[in-house]
Amino acid sequence: MNYQLPTTNYQLPTTNYQPARTSFVTGKLLTSLIHQYLPLAVMSVSLRQKKMIMASETLEKLNWRYATKKFDKSQTLSEEKIEILKQAFNLTATSYGLQPIKMISIKDKEVQAQLVPFTMQQQQVADASHVLVLCVEKTISKHYIKEYFSRVATIRNTPAAILQPFEAFLIDSFSEKETSEIRQWMEKQAYIALGNLLTVCAYEQIDACPIEGFEPEAYDTFLELDKRNLNSVLVLAVGHRAEDDMFATMKKVRKGVDNVVIDY
Amino acid sequence: MNYQLPTTNYQLPTTNYQPARTSFVTGKLLTSLIHQYLPLAVMSVSLRQKKMIMASETLEKLNWRYATKKFDKSQTLSEEKIEILKQAFNLTATSYGLQPIKMISIKDKEVQAQLVPFTMQQQQVADASHVLVLCVEKTISKHYIKEYFSRVATIRNTPAAILQPFEAFLIDSFSEKETSEIRQWMEKQAYIALGNLLTVCAYEQIDACPIEGFEPEAYDTFLELDKRNLNSVLVLAVGHRAEDDMFATMKKVRKGVDNVVIDY
Repeated sequence: MNYQLPTTNYQLPTTNYQPARTSFVTGKLLTSLIHQYLPLAVMSVSLRQKKMIMASETLEKLNWRYATKKFDKSQTLSEEKIEILKQAFNLTATSYGLQPIKMISIKDKEVQAQLVPFTMQQQQVADASHVLVLCVEKTISKHYIKEYFSRVATIRNTPAAILQPFEAFLIDSFSEKETSEIRQWMEKQAYIALGNLLTVCAYEQIDACPIEGFEPEAYDTFLELDKRNLNSVLVLAVGHRAEDDMFATMKKVRKGVDNVVIDY
Repeated sequence: MNYQLPTTNYQLPTTNYQPARTSFVTGKLLTSLIHQYLPLAVMSVSLRQKKMIMASETLEKLNWRYATKKFDKSQTLSEEKIEILKQAFNLTATSYGLQPIKMISIKDKEVQAQLVPFTMQQQQVADASHVLVLCVEKTISKHYIKEYFSRVATIRNTPAAILQPFEAFLIDSFSEKETSEIRQWMEKQAYIALGNLLTVCAYEQIDACPIEGFEPEAYDTFLELDKRNLNSVLVLAVGHRAEDDMFATMKKVRKGVDNVVIDY
């Protein structure tokens, strides 16, 4: 419905393009051939590429996705969809596998409404089916790292002797880092989770709006995150787009692929 | 083939669990009922949940994914798969839509081999089909922001008057930020792209290994990123897992979902 072919910024890949053989044609004939066939050739490459995008479920889904500006208040995500998002969050790849991130899932409409003033008045947090708050741990203690290795030992049945050197290395490495450095490292892991969740939402046809513009301290206080040793970092409102969200049908604004990707 | 049910750290969601009504049973009868039915009830909920995971393509794919330790050197990703990764990178959601990130795609095996010493001797960059280097811009100038708005105007045909206040706000806002703050903001956008690409890889059955452990300055010099006004931030090796990569069949180590996700 809201799917848009990225015609405006789509770039023809050079590898698939086959120029007509011109070695045995000259002058006028060449000009005539170019005029006759080139537009067709270009169009046909373009159509072939568009077909590829249509045929690629991934690109179709990623094109369907947009930062939802208005959610349909009356619609709620199914328990199954929410369970997929929770499991997907837990399956996010994190540095060293340490998972220094947690997610608060809010579906109480009264609570959601109270978040609006701390979210630069963005109504999405009130209208979305669920508001997911991505958080980082306040600190990574020696105990936290030890817990991770005990999890590895239990789940994979790995002998402690094999894990010990890496465990010692990590404890050492974290003890030498500044608090701000650890904090930045944790925040980046939350951004991996955001990237993962946005793509999962696209595949699952869940509408989403990622939000950096909110007051983390106000969220922390309101959600009593102190008790849980957490700090909020990112907000992701999820649900269903409102039928009259005019942003749903706007063309995606992107640089061309050959501008952002460089073949070395 | 390498799909593993996350039995070890899978948590029963409380919403789907229906405890037997106990108000009219007492004492011995209750004990007997519990012994008779509870294991079955628990098992059946667990099976239902496992079925859900099997039925969810998303969770199946995310469970298939792992940080590939050994790539099959003899296998190369198809042009189509690489094109999907490039397009997906360009479709990554970024803050304000500013796309302060670029990706270098390397498939020359000699070049890849030369990266190993700058990648803590990790052989994946040599053996992978392609090495993707995620980079950030060195700076976000006023001109860079203006270019973005001119792109919006062209692609969406939006009158300049409508865009102007937001353009002025962004230029102002970036001029007030410290260089280090802008840099951190850009790096986080690269991590969103990493999260997106890892999930796209999982869906596309592309094996991948995200790498933070490399020397960014050495990469920058070697790839002459200075010329392009870029700095390397993350490395993603992509290709096909080697048949004898023992990490492929290891159980995923994750906290339980009810440990990382908190229902508010």
